[in-house]
Amino acid sequence: MRVVIAPDSFKGSLSAQHVAASIADGVVSACPDAEVHLVPLADGGEGTVDCLLDVVGGDVVTVPVHDPLGRPIDAHYGVLPDGTVVIEVASAAGLTLVAEQERDVLRGNTQGLGELLSHALDAGRTSFVVALGGSATNDGGVGMLYALGARFYDENGHELAPTPDSCRSLWRIDVSHLHPKLADASIRVACDVANPLCGERGATAVYGPQKGVTPDLIPVLDAFLDRFAAVVHRDLQISIRDIPGAGAAGGLGAALVGLLGAKLLRGIDLILDLTSFDTRLEAADLVITGEGSTDAQTANGKAVMGIATRAKAVGVPVFCLSGNISREATALYEHGVTALFSITQGPMSLADAMKSTGALLARSGESAVRAFLAGRMRR
Amino acid sequence: MRVVIAPDSFKGSLSAQHVAASIADGVVSACPDAEVHLVPLADGGEGTVDCLLDVVGGDVVTVPVHDPLGRPIDAHYGVLPDGTVVIEVASAAGLTLVAEQERDVLRGNTQGLGELLSHALDAGRTSFVVALGGSATNDGGVGMLYALGARFYDENGHELAPTPDSCRSLWRIDVSHLHPKLADASIRVACDVANPLCGERGATAVYGPQKGVTPDLIPVLDAFLDRFAAVVHRDLQISIRDIPGAGAAGGLGAALVGLLGAKLLRGIDLILDLTSFDTRLEAADLVITGEGSTDAQTANGKAVMGIATRAKAVGVPVFCLSGNISREATALYEHGVTALFSITQGPMSLADAMKSTGALLARSGESAVRAFLAGRMRR
Repeated sequence: MRVVIAPDSFKGSLSAQHVAASIADGVVSACPDAEVHLVPLADGGEGTVDCLLDVVGGDVVTVPVHDPLGRPIDAHYGVLPDGTVVIEVASAAGLTLVAEQERDVLRGNTQGLGELLSHALDAGRTSFVVALGGSATNDGGVGMLYALGARFYDENGHELAPTPDSCRSLWRIDVSHLHPKLADASIRVACDVANPLCGERGATAVYGPQKGVTPDLIPVLDAFLDRFAAVVHRDLQISIRDIPGAGAAGGLGAALVGLLGAKLLRGIDLILDLTSFDTRLEAADLVITGEGSTDAQTANGKAVMGIATRAKAVGVPVFCLSGNISREATALYEHGVTALFSITQGPMSLADAMKSTGALLARSGESAVRAFLAGRMRR
Repeated sequence: MRVVIAPDSFKGSLSAQHVAASIADGVVSACPDAEVHLVPLADGGEGTVDCLLDVVGGDVVTVPVHDPLGRPIDAHYGVLPDGTVVIEVASAAGLTLVAEQERDVLRGNTQGLGELLSHALDAGRTSFVVALGGSATNDGGVGMLYALGARFYDENGHELAPTPDSCRSLWRIDVSHLHPKLADASIRVACDVANPLCGERGATAVYGPQKGVTPDLIPVLDAFLDRFAAVVHRDLQISIRDIPGAGAAGGLGAALVGLLGAKLLRGIDLILDLTSFDTRLEAADLVITGEGSTDAQTANGKAVMGIATRAKAVGVPVFCLSGNISREATALYEHGVTALFSITQGPMSLADAMKSTGALLARSGESAVRAFLAGRMRR
């Protein structure tokens, strides 16, 4: 029997890799000669590079760049065996790089991301995947564009620093010196949100507060993004303000799509493509996935839903092991999830469940596979 | 698909009948055309008559008898379609018949049980099943024997009341006027304990305290049972003291086996025989059982274990749905349980789990059957 084990992480408890290994223990207990294929998944946020390298192999390239506050750091990107470069925004412009008391969204930018892209372009790479998520910035991508050769000027022709604060007086953008190899590059962006750039559903209002944007700064930053969009529209005849996803990662979505020709894709679909998931499904008897909590949100594009959709298309059953299964989760039965199992083995606290996630996954995985095998025997 | 649903009760939460119905809801959700057979089980204690009548049909016969304290009450027994009479000791001599402040084990007896047996014998019944468990008495069965015609005398030939208190001075037993139809009767006793009549593992020391026997009365009652055994041995040449199970139900085991020729059987095996469980298994694709808590005890003769043993013999898989599954429960996989599923759907308190047992059973039953069906499809 061939079992594809493709879980998400259990946030706050176990990485996707650990979850997959624990489930595999249970599968092998139930069926010692099972052929297990571990495909730990990320949904396109932090952990994406590690997951992809883990599943398909590849190398990590370390590059000295600038963090959101302009300080030198080492960031990295992954290069998959087919040459695709995978970059996490969080690696160069992540919230975890900036201590809480240092946060300064007005002066923070995504320059480090541009440096990573530039480095890979210099190395001749042409296929890029950018995982948004976890960014500390709200700069509309001006930092990234700057590192790739764009320049920003005020009404008087003075060059502006690529930060929201400086670019409040943005008047002109010069993209004539953008990295020449960008023309041949294809960029896919893992993005699960559809927020526009500005306004009450925009980058600043929705995601700013979690980055330390105080209420008084929201209109300031929103006005900057609005101005940025206006200038791009006038100078480059490109409308970025209302692209669905323009507001992702502090407006980075707008710059990636509008100025670099990137395509926004659902994170899990991108990951599944990069891991050749459909091919892995071909000979599979069963897929086991899992996530910390399965609820109405799950149907809304998370990893489990993406997997279920693919598996349903080729008729492979999907078991989902979850820390908690809400009543609404049974709606997933319509979407390719075959059976839902909580890993809890009785009444217990969340803390205890999180302490024993690995062992509980193994036990519930074993039971689920034993039930499946009983059916196979019984036809 | 044919599914036999044969759970125990979830003590303190749902009766076996309710548990079976809840599981059936889940099975039908997973497989609308499943043929479900509900066989709610008792393990030979209280609830045995109701369960058996529910599963195989039959009638209830109500008889005016005397309760443990000699007060008139209506007790009942069941008559199965094949004429077998099923009697719960608890119906006529149960702890629930005596309020806590009324408890008087020294003067309490099993006369009501004898009256039930006598009534059925008068009606021409010859096959009897007696479910021990829940008795309020510690009378070695003298009350029952009295109602069936035995008489007890002291050293001076004075007749003694059939109570432990009176029979402390027992000198002679006269069984010459026992009910004449007892000779043709066959009595099977559902008994899951192996305690001897007397001593530190005997009826009084082990089960007395839960019936209200105070520490000072333990030696008094134990001495009575010891004397009863000595007199039976001298007058009837029968050794009842060390029969395994003699100490069940306050020494009733000794009287039933030693003086009425009863056979002690594991409760669940008796129930499974009475419900023709093996026949029900013949065309079954799957058995689903369940109990409140599955642990190392379960392997020790409870309902789930009995079912698993029968199903294993004919190769039918068994799923066990349980409120709580201990780590040691996986030992059951050796004994015919195919897969163990907790009904909890995430971290929750015991109180919450007990409040929603029915709904949780339906959900876990649905998932388990969905997993089984996935295997069937996939062969």
